[in-house]
Amino acid sequence: MERFVRPGSVAVIGASADRRKVGYAMQANARASLGDRCHLVNPAYKEIEGLPCYPSVEDLPVVVDLAIVFVRAPLVPDVLRACGRKGIRRVMIQSAGFAETGEQGRALQDECLATAREYGVRIWGPNCMGVVNGQTKMALSFMRPNLWRNSLRPGGVSLIVQSGMLAAGFLMQILSENYFGLNLACSIGNRSDINECDLLEYMADDPCTEVVAMYLESIADVQRFREAVTRLNRPVLLLKGGASAQGAKAALSHTASMAGNAKISEGLFRQLGILRAVDFIELMDLTKAHVLWRKKSAGNRVAIATFSGAAGIVATDHVMGRGMVMADLSPQTVRRLTSIYPDWMEPGNPLDLWPAIERNGVTRVYYEVSDALLNDPGVDAIHFHIFVEESLLKRGLDFLHVLGKAPKPVAFWMIGDTAYFRGFRDRVESLGIPVFTEIERGIRCLKAITDSIANNS
Amino acid sequence: MERFVRPGSVAVIGASADRRKVGYAMQANARASLGDRCHLVNPAYKEIEGLPCYPSVEDLPVVVDLAIVFVRAPLVPDVLRACGRKGIRRVMIQSAGFAETGEQGRALQDECLATAREYGVRIWGPNCMGVVNGQTKMALSFMRPNLWRNSLRPGGVSLIVQSGMLAAGFLMQILSENYFGLNLACSIGNRSDINECDLLEYMADDPCTEVVAMYLESIADVQRFREAVTRLNRPVLLLKGGASAQGAKAALSHTASMAGNAKISEGLFRQLGILRAVDFIELMDLTKAHVLWRKKSAGNRVAIATFSGAAGIVATDHVMGRGMVMADLSPQTVRRLTSIYPDWMEPGNPLDLWPAIERNGVTRVYYEVSDALLNDPGVDAIHFHIFVEESLLKRGLDFLHVLGKAPKPVAFWMIGDTAYFRGFRDRVESLGIPVFTEIERGIRCLKAITDSIANNS
Repeated sequence: MERFVRPGSVAVIGASADRRKVGYAMQANARASLGDRCHLVNPAYKEIEGLPCYPSVEDLPVVVDLAIVFVRAPLVPDVLRACGRKGIRRVMIQSAGFAETGEQGRALQDECLATAREYGVRIWGPNCMGVVNGQTKMALSFMRPNLWRNSLRPGGVSLIVQSGMLAAGFLMQILSENYFGLNLACSIGNRSDINECDLLEYMADDPCTEVVAMYLESIADVQRFREAVTRLNRPVLLLKGGASAQGAKAALSHTASMAGNAKISEGLFRQLGILRAVDFIELMDLTKAHVLWRKKSAGNRVAIATFSGAAGIVATDHVMGRGMVMADLSPQTVRRLTSIYPDWMEPGNPLDLWPAIERNGVTRVYYEVSDALLNDPGVDAIHFHIFVEESLLKRGLDFLHVLGKAPKPVAFWMIGDTAYFRGFRDRVESLGIPVFTEIERGIRCLKAITDSIANNS
Repeated sequence: MERFVRPGSVAVIGASADRRKVGYAMQANARASLGDRCHLVNPAYKEIEGLPCYPSVEDLPVVVDLAIVFVRAPLVPDVLRACGRKGIRRVMIQSAGFAETGEQGRALQDECLATAREYGVRIWGPNCMGVVNGQTKMALSFMRPNLWRNSLRPGGVSLIVQSGMLAAGFLMQILSENYFGLNLACSIGNRSDINECDLLEYMADDPCTEVVAMYLESIADVQRFREAVTRLNRPVLLLKGGASAQGAKAALSHTASMAGNAKISEGLFRQLGILRAVDFIELMDLTKAHVLWRKKSAGNRVAIATFSGAAGIVATDHVMGRGMVMADLSPQTVRRLTSIYPDWMEPGNPLDLWPAIERNGVTRVYYEVSDALLNDPGVDAIHFHIFVEESLLKRGLDFLHVLGKAPKPVAFWMIGDTAYFRGFRDRVESLGIPVFTEIERGIRCLKAITDSIANNS
């Protein structure tokens, strides 16, 4: 598996010189990733932008670690045979037109698999978007190089997805938005041979994998999946496609996945402690929060501190609605906070910070409240609300450092001038505190992750 | 009521020359809104930035339409008496420290109300953040002028809120993000006298109000509320704070609201066809979508067209999970779309657009699919997914015009290069098509609004 995600050399079979074609982006990415350890195959060209292009696999000057295939589906079995004869042992079939298209495609896929077995070749795909490696800054996928060159940052997140989106455009959105650093993004498509279990087994021994996030349309082998997730022993997050009857039908023609019985998989995922996301952004939010919070303590007594009373009340409704509880502030905390509040207001949870801010300014109030809540043994987690504007970012914001170092999970919900959202978020998240823009999503994340930490500690 | 939201003249009682104080922002906004029809009162100053400042209400040179009070709570009854004697008939008390603080504050509030009745004065507040009028570009609130001067755009949305956030910082975020044009934002606080019913009754006769969005912690008078909403006869959206026991307790010390029995209000809201939001951003999303879609037809047969197969499957799960159905494409639609798809792929709902885009380019595919789905009588609404990047925005995007003119509601979910999100969203929403960044929120909006259109047609 190592050579699939960290190949020493690759061949792009079906490379194109036409900039509008996927086969162009594919070879451009492979070259940008591997330099002269990337070789091209296409009988239509002698060279592509200065790199020789060989007419066939047989003509390749070396036996590459990995062949990436992007030719029309009916031609793939012959390419596989050629790879087998050449001694290439790993083939990543990115072409579509296989089992996802019906009977004929299924037969073609079976033929590929039989051919591969005959030659001892392992297949990744077909109908996939390859692999992106954040550690080696390698993209064997077809997103445009200008999109990934600047934003691929190494980190502990490994993705296993039956989706092109999460190995291409959407992955780039997430990385350029600085959600987290990437270890691997593995788009496995129809997974005729290599499937999520192979990757989970590999990641169990991969020191770079800290968190695994998956988009799957079905589980290829339930028993093996159960063992692999158990052995993995790291947080696993999942978005499952095909929960509805129509969604399951669509999954069949997307990756030929039998999305199967939603109730059975629900039970399995719960047993294994897998966290579920409702959509792609939430999958990424949960992943980000898990990376930031994985060394925090956990508990369900939440303190809410907001810039506005209404914000505190709605946040409280969400905390209660998710089955967490509102922390009772200790007498010491109340005494301490009383000093920053006007006489007519007794501080309590949720804390409406505005009357205190009016008297003492933003930075002092956030500092006092942070310090008081962190020292209150009855508070397990803190959900802050803050108004972000240019002047806020110009300050020292010592309270953020206090919060970042604390063992309790802290989340921020920001409103204000959106021009400064990214600046505030980058600063806060670099300290280990996730930032959200909506109450619902932030509290859902807080609940999910604190439960997960509690279960794994 | 008209003179509260469109005063010809105002007096700011408790104006401050100290830029760090709320009393400063208050007078700065009032002056920016009303010019020399704004008068200042504070015995501590002779003038503030060139405008005379009078020592007391008695000394004002005119009887203003509206007095805005921001002095310490215990001083408010005397100010009210002075206003009464002066002949001022409308007083907006923005000071806090009344019924929301307990027994003593409740007594003070009662004293204010009795005084007001004695003099025939109507009270707005106390403990509120005033009013913002998008038609007259007037902000009698205390957000900073630089935040609202450039983004206040007139429109059909009227807000009634027991929250300062929605008359200040968060309102400005929403307006600068171009969610919708504003008619009125009315922050009513403890609503000791004027409450949501007064405003709903006023808005029923206000031709500028097209949609009403509210944040309320309780209903002041259920019977009158029922009649007012019925007479209003416009879409009403609501975020209700205090649904949980702890949230209701917090509402008591926020606006002295008895959040009351959640089940009873659920029934009332359902009967009246009021749409519920889960948080502030969703309240704004629903409002935006209602403004954009209010002249569309509605039905629950949805077509999904996505840039990625996985996106289509997850969107399908959300459509089905919300109780809508996936539209059956007509034979004509399927025949027409077959021409842009590769042989191995038969188009169906959800439509995975990528294989067609690979062959025909983005703009042709979106155009063909838009036109085909709009002409399919079995499709009631369309949910598009699109990859946004710089090159997309440079194109003609004729399909957007086709979609904008259609009677069917259309939504976009965008992923891609976030630097171009705002540009794409502004362009698409100016054509009447809301844009979202998450599947869950977009589909929830689609369901809520199409139900609402269906119920009101």
